[in-house]
Amino acid sequence: MKKKLWAGRFDKAMAKEVERFTASISFDKRLFRYDIEGSLAHVAMLARSGLISKADATALRRGLKKVRDELANGTYKPDAGYEDIHMAVESRLKKHVGPVADKLHTARSRNDQVALDTRLFVRGEIGEIDGGINALQRAIVRCAWRYRDLVMPGFTHLQHAQPVLFAHHCLAYVEMLQRDRERLSDCYRRADCMPLGAGALAGSTLPIDRRYVAGLLGFKTVSRNSIDAVSDRDFIVEFLAAIALIGIHLSRMAEEIVLWVSREFSYMEIDLSYLSGSSLMPQKANPDVAELVRGKSGRLMGDLVALLTVLKGVPLAYNRDFQEDKEPLFDAVDTVRGCLAIMAGLWGRIGMRRNVVEKALWGDYSQATDLAEYLVARGCPFRKAHEIVGKLVKRCIRERMALEEITLDVLRAASDKFDSDALSILQHHTGVKRKRSLGSTSPREVMKELRSWRKKLGLVTA
Amino acid sequence: MKKKLWAGRFDKAMAKEVERFTASISFDKRLFRYDIEGSLAHVAMLARSGLISKADATALRRGLKKVRDELANGTYKPDAGYEDIHMAVESRLKKHVGPVADKLHTARSRNDQVALDTRLFVRGEIGEIDGGINALQRAIVRCAWRYRDLVMPGFTHLQHAQPVLFAHHCLAYVEMLQRDRERLSDCYRRADCMPLGAGALAGSTLPIDRRYVAGLLGFKTVSRNSIDAVSDRDFIVEFLAAIALIGIHLSRMAEEIVLWVSREFSYMEIDLSYLSGSSLMPQKANPDVAELVRGKSGRLMGDLVALLTVLKGVPLAYNRDFQEDKEPLFDAVDTVRGCLAIMAGLWGRIGMRRNVVEKALWGDYSQATDLAEYLVARGCPFRKAHEIVGKLVKRCIRERMALEEITLDVLRAASDKFDSDALSILQHHTGVKRKRSLGSTSPREVMKELRSWRKKLGLVTA
Amino acid sequence: MKKKLWAGRFDKAMAKEVERFTASISFDKRLFRYDIEGSLAHVAMLARSGLISKADATALRRGLKKVRDELANGTYKPDAGYEDIHMAVESRLKKHVGPVADKLHTARSRNDQVALDTRLFVRGEIGEIDGGINALQRAIVRCAWRYRDLVMPGFTHLQHAQPVLFAHHCLAYVEMLQRDRERLSDCYRRADCMPLGAGALAGSTLPIDRRYVAGLLGFKTVSRNSIDAVSDRDFIVEFLAAIALIGIHLSRMAEEIVLWVSREFSYMEIDLSYLSGSSLMPQKANPDVAELVRGKSGRLMGDLVALLTVLKGVPLAYNRDFQEDKEPLFDAVDTVRGCLAIMAGLWGRIGMRRNVVEKALWGDYSQATDLAEYLVARGCPFRKAHEIVGKLVKRCIRERMALEEITLDVLRAASDKFDSDALSILQHHTGVKRKRSLGSTSPREVMKELRSWRKKLGLVTA
Amino acid sequence: MKKKLWAGRFDKAMAKEVERFTASISFDKRLFRYDIEGSLAHVAMLARSGLISKADATALRRGLKKVRDELANGTYKPDAGYEDIHMAVESRLKKHVGPVADKLHTARSRNDQVALDTRLFVRGEIGEIDGGINALQRAIVRCAWRYRDLVMPGFTHLQHAQPVLFAHHCLAYVEMLQRDRERLSDCYRRADCMPLGAGALAGSTLPIDRRYVAGLLGFKTVSRNSIDAVSDRDFIVEFLAAIALIGIHLSRMAEEIVLWVSREFSYMEIDLSYLSGSSLMPQKANPDVAELVRGKSGRLMGDLVALLTVLKGVPLAYNRDFQEDKEPLFDAVDTVRGCLAIMAGLWGRIGMRRNVVEKALWGDYSQATDLAEYLVARGCPFRKAHEIVGKLVKRCIRERMALEEITLDVLRAASDKFDSDALSILQHHTGVKRKRSLGSTSPREVMKELRSWRKKLGLVTA
Repeated sequence: MKKKLWAGRFDKAMAKEVERFTASISFDKRLFRYDIEGSLAHVAMLARSGLISKADATALRRGLKKVRDELANGTYKPDAGYEDIHMAVESRLKKHVGPVADKLHTARSRNDQVALDTRLFVRGEIGEIDGGINALQRAIVRCAWRYRDLVMPGFTHLQHAQPVLFAHHCLAYVEMLQRDRERLSDCYRRADCMPLGAGALAGSTLPIDRRYVAGLLGFKTVSRNSIDAVSDRDFIVEFLAAIALIGIHLSRMAEEIVLWVSREFSYMEIDLSYLSGSSLMPQKANPDVAELVRGKSGRLMGDLVALLTVLKGVPLAYNRDFQEDKEPLFDAVDTVRGCLAIMAGLWGRIGMRRNVVEKALWGDYSQATDLAEYLVARGCPFRKAHEIVGKLVKRCIRERMALEEITLDVLRAASDKFDSDALSILQHHTGVKRKRSLGSTSPREVMKELRSWRKKLGLVTA
Repeated sequence: MKKKLWAGRFDKAMAKEVERFTASISFDKRLFRYDIEGSLAHVAMLARSGLISKADATALRRGLKKVRDELANGTYKPDAGYEDIHMAVESRLKKHVGPVADKLHTARSRNDQVALDTRLFVRGEIGEIDGGINALQRAIVRCAWRYRDLVMPGFTHLQHAQPVLFAHHCLAYVEMLQRDRERLSDCYRRADCMPLGAGALAGSTLPIDRRYVAGLLGFKTVSRNSIDAVSDRDFIVEFLAAIALIGIHLSRMAEEIVLWVSREFSYMEIDLSYLSGSSLMPQKANPDVAELVRGKSGRLMGDLVALLTVLKGVPLAYNRDFQEDKEPLFDAVDTVRGCLAIMAGLWGRIGMRRNVVEKALWGDYSQATDLAEYLVARGCPFRKAHEIVGKLVKRCIRERMALEEITLDVLRAASDKFDSDALSILQHHTGVKRKRSLGSTSPREVMKELRSWRKKLGLVTA
Repeated sequence: MKKKLWAGRFDKAMAKEVERFTASISFDKRLFRYDIEGSLAHVAMLARSGLISKADATALRRGLKKVRDELANGTYKPDAGYEDIHMAVESRLKKHVGPVADKLHTARSRNDQVALDTRLFVRGEIGEIDGGINALQRAIVRCAWRYRDLVMPGFTHLQHAQPVLFAHHCLAYVEMLQRDRERLSDCYRRADCMPLGAGALAGSTLPIDRRYVAGLLGFKTVSRNSIDAVSDRDFIVEFLAAIALIGIHLSRMAEEIVLWVSREFSYMEIDLSYLSGSSLMPQKANPDVAELVRGKSGRLMGDLVALLTVLKGVPLAYNRDFQEDKEPLFDAVDTVRGCLAIMAGLWGRIGMRRNVVEKALWGDYSQATDLAEYLVARGCPFRKAHEIVGKLVKRCIRERMALEEITLDVLRAASDKFDSDALSILQHHTGVKRKRSLGSTSPREVMKELRSWRKKLGLVTA
Repeated sequence: MKKKLWAGRFDKAMAKEVERFTASISFDKRLFRYDIEGSLAHVAMLARSGLISKADATALRRGLKKVRDELANGTYKPDAGYEDIHMAVESRLKKHVGPVADKLHTARSRNDQVALDTRLFVRGEIGEIDGGINALQRAIVRCAWRYRDLVMPGFTHLQHAQPVLFAHHCLAYVEMLQRDRERLSDCYRRADCMPLGAGALAGSTLPIDRRYVAGLLGFKTVSRNSIDAVSDRDFIVEFLAAIALIGIHLSRMAEEIVLWVSREFSYMEIDLSYLSGSSLMPQKANPDVAELVRGKSGRLMGDLVALLTVLKGVPLAYNRDFQEDKEPLFDAVDTVRGCLAIMAGLWGRIGMRRNVVEKALWGDYSQATDLAEYLVARGCPFRKAHEIVGKLVKRCIRERMALEEITLDVLRAASDKFDSDALSILQHHTGVKRKRSLGSTSPREVMKELRSWRKKLGLVTA
């Protein structure tokens, strides 16, 4: 057991089992870079404010960097006896620089220190995740571009609804992911607020300069209420909520991949390097990657629920419950980064089976809506048109005819508003091309969007 | 059972139990204003685009307004036989205006229609909730202002940590709530995107003008991908996550109120009009309002979890599962609005028991940190200072002395760096006043913040 | 506003908004039968213990029954001014029987009363849900029996794994549901404990007879700690957890139905009376029932999370937060009962498309495992056998051969352990029949299970 | 990268990033004992059924034990290149015993193998957790016994409600925990079902003897449906739900401890060895243990939500998503075991501050209910009695009198039913003693319960 740095008033050592139970070093050591980055800025400020001498500052700076290097290259492995990374760093620092280390914690509490570390971590991880989403968007757009003329069944209720361009379908995911990036960026704004100097909860009587620290660490704002500063975990909740939603998006995408590589769909192939076999069944080649991504949405939701529950009903200001913020945070970050990266890899290794996809359209009656709109354009009220085409479909089903096969006579039997130009609508490709509305699946609209995304994502030079 | 408007291809009526199970009219009738507002804009666009005549448009507009009035004043109560509010409105419209009603649904699906209605609803409710938070902030700031000179124990771990101003504590909540407003405003930006015209999922072949509709309805942007437009429920998830976090904030505030009105704390009184009695115990006066607010954070979390689960693993585009978005949304909105309003009322009916609060500071050793900083200012390394003061506290506890009572001799026995000016620090009020850092509990900082909030919230004229 | 029955010590009326916010009458009126059933037993006990006279008891009993009838037939509709169903009943009772009503609440608090009502409710609903599961199991078993000789692809990873009997697949769901019933039955045991007499939290000084009340109400045990009795909501949590898991099971079943009725699978047909159309697309016939059931698993999870959150960190004994137990409970019960009933209906209206299902097996290599086991039976170590068959499958894929098509020569080229009897294994039906292990998909095992379930579920007479 | 044991049909190695993403060895290595225990039973069965020779069985048995020892003592550390513990064990086994290792996986799939391992793990952990609860119950009962005559305020709404025995309050927790044990025991029954032999999903063609394996491993039943056997994770959900509820119970207990050691309550002291200090504030001694336990209820809820979400909407049978069952399971088990142990430790290190607790009763009017029941016993209808005493309390509050202080005159002014014997009720202790009902806080009832628990928990010999 390490001597506690706060043991002044205590007559009695902490029980071993309590040390083990309360220690966070096993997971918060991961924050060491941020912890030391924060301490370096703190030291600079203390010196500038005259709270420590320049010589002290130099010693502390040198020592902190040394500890950082040792932690980075593994020559210093803090043992489990430390409470947390803050104490592990400070103790090691003292070993290197001697008693001057005792000045580091001036005008600082672990309450504001851990708030700072976590904000630095979240800021950094938002950048990483944003990069991960970007890479996934690029992979999707590349795939969409490769198959940009492929027409496929568009689904609602997992039933063929209307033919759409495969690229249009892909871009729906790109849009979703773009919203995720916006949410992360909003979350960043709220994380970008410097808490150090709030002390335990009340601020300091010493002449510290919090804005200077914020400047050194690149924070846009400084927290304006010290009680709030140490008890605020909102930025983590917001981050976990954004991540949970990314997870949901990935689960939807993964579900479709699982469906599309099923034998029954056979719309998609995945390169063998991204498939798994079975320990029992010699023929199996399974889309495990997509399944795991789908499943991992669960833990991302769990992480969010965990933190919200931790915060429920806890009074101001800091409470030790808050230590439970870190493991869900770390887990969510690692999970979502892993999922984004592997999904980007997967999108680079899929192939659409053009023949299967296009053949799937045959006889699915998904041109019906366009036929109804044809009638509307000829003055038929929509509900009437809907009913006419509905009955036509019913007749076709009964007579086992595909819409592609029917003659003008059959059409005109349904409504005399049908002219020979209606026959072209019976081909799925025509239906797609006839779309006109902004954001629709018309090739013109989709190509406009595809080009815009390719530019935005840096896949082509403007 | 109402005749289904989509029954063309069906030979057979829907089973009664399926009608009941799938109908959403019992809850989505609440969207009628938004549904009709959307339809009015749609009609205007159809006429402008030449898809219907001006006369038709006039008739439809007149009819829609009539249905709206009837729904508003209760003369039309759609019965449970309708599938949803869209069908209930259209059927009633047809009763009023005849066959022209069949043209209303031109170039529109319920998929994009319900997406539009829900976005209009969310935009509106964000405004309402923002107003509710504003009112609560005003109530808190008013209370903080009333007791702006009250010094109280600041808590960490529910232990006295350092003395703080009551107003400072209050403003911590005001900061939290301000972040909630920012999050809502970010959420609004993403909700503010017009989906109509996406049709079922593919857009339309008819010459519709989506930007015109967006303009009429005050939307900033138009959705750019029709598949995404009908399958996107992200804005609701984000809204529910923001609401869940508001709920957590309110639960923390409520917890403190419950604590503070407990007999043991007795820091706070609540006006009898906001207390409840007991059916059995004649003496009871309970803070039920705060308890219920605390408890209601549970259902807000449940609503968020419900929707995230609904979306998990569901492929593109629209699926009927999405109908399950509305009840959690409505429940969350109603719950959080109720909680915000009642908490604003409660803050207006509390009184702080000054004597109790100030007496609570006596003998709590919460001046210790300031003593340590005193030593730091005199050149003592912080860890050393912490230890010295820790031992001093230990001695006081052993000898049953309050810090307020000790003499200079006792101080100097702990460290000869203590001078007579240290004695003043032994008074809690001095400690508060000596704080200097930005965002600290120093009266200067707190008054600056209080004034700024009063201005921002319109409590004083600038 | 109704006069509060606890207003003795209050100088001041409760604020209108507080009445509205705290009232539970809008939802707990649903408990009226249980509330009155509990009061009738309470009255009987009070009389038996001599706490009220027989005449009083008769009057109260008559009055309570009258109130029950009025609530049942709607002639008494408690207005929103009552706090809760207990007060609404007591007030009405007083109107009918006069001052003797003031004796009803003797030795009773609303804390134990509502605990009793909720336990009675949960006991009743467990029975209803158990019945709902039973009906669903019967529907599944009937369907399994109808297609008892149908061989279909068994899936893992949504890939064809090994051929199985459709009935075997169905019985997997029957097993799941049976566990749900067991869980409900365990939950019942814990709900079956009588709390009345715990009073507010401390019990009573009056000579009440709690065991007598328990006997009248059919409770197996009597709570042994009055503090626990009024603060225990575990039985609801456990019930909601059991319901959430039922919801998950139904979501899995629903997912498969959605898949199987997709055009790509086409394994299953649903009667038109259980399908829905589209307001835009005339050809659509969607499995909305299954989609909604899948989606409703979300709210069941939300309900569970809601209640767990309510309870988190709340001290003993009763707190008003607990009022938030009822709405998730009611919602979960209604939702799961609705889902069970409609799924039972759905299973009665599906047809398997035998030709499609059996044709789906062709060329899927799902006989591979049986080939490997053939080799094992001839002394080949399993890993070796797995590798041999894996290579054989690879060759077939390369040469575009189905396993069904290959000759003995091809087999023997893979391993000379293959004899002519191996050829029969290449037919999927043979593979199913060759299974031997207990619980396997062998027709013998499956028929044994089917028969056992049919008996157990009362579909055939023993 | 390890050669995959299922690579027969694959032309191409799995991509490195896919290996990393899909591997579970980093966490499932924890199951090694169970995995090998299962394999040993499997080997015994294979030999008995003649599927492998006795010599092979002996070699495999010896090899498996060796691998187990190596894993136990750390001489074999499976590297990250293995997919999972099953493959790591089998590969190591092959290194020790050569080609005979290829026979181990006969008639087995990883699907049923991992189901078996997990069930063995859950059975074991249920025992451990049950033991942990037992130890906590013992610690609570010991503490209750130590203070068995201490009367304290009983709380509802965190307001003094009625005086209760401290021991009665403690036993409320013992009851809660006992229900947790019952739930675990029910959960055990459902986990106690042997899945091995289900193979991938269809069972085996080889003459395996599943009942024999079940017997060797001490399972009560054998799964009866192979598809269900490999896709069932219900027993983990049920276990996680039971654990989440334990977490909620501990959070309630922890909340009270935090309250009671607050300066304002000061009901309880905790030994310094179980308290923590502050890095900034020298005087602090914080109940971090209780706070962390309270907070950890969050991750237990998160673990439950995670798994439920994983399972939502996933079709039969095994899917790779299920691999996500293990980390929440492990986390929940470790967390709850840690919490139970530390709470047992904590209960052994608390002291009640008798003087403070008893003084807290003074003037709290919590005798009011007993006064009302006094009147009832004298024939006053309860509502009337409630009102009379309510008014009496109001008068006392107005005149700043404690109920303990009032005279018979004051009482009789309220109601002439009061006689001199009523005066004794004004002492809180009398109120406790006058309780009569079963399960009440009367000393007789509480001592009966205390004695019964002491016997049941083995604290005294019967």
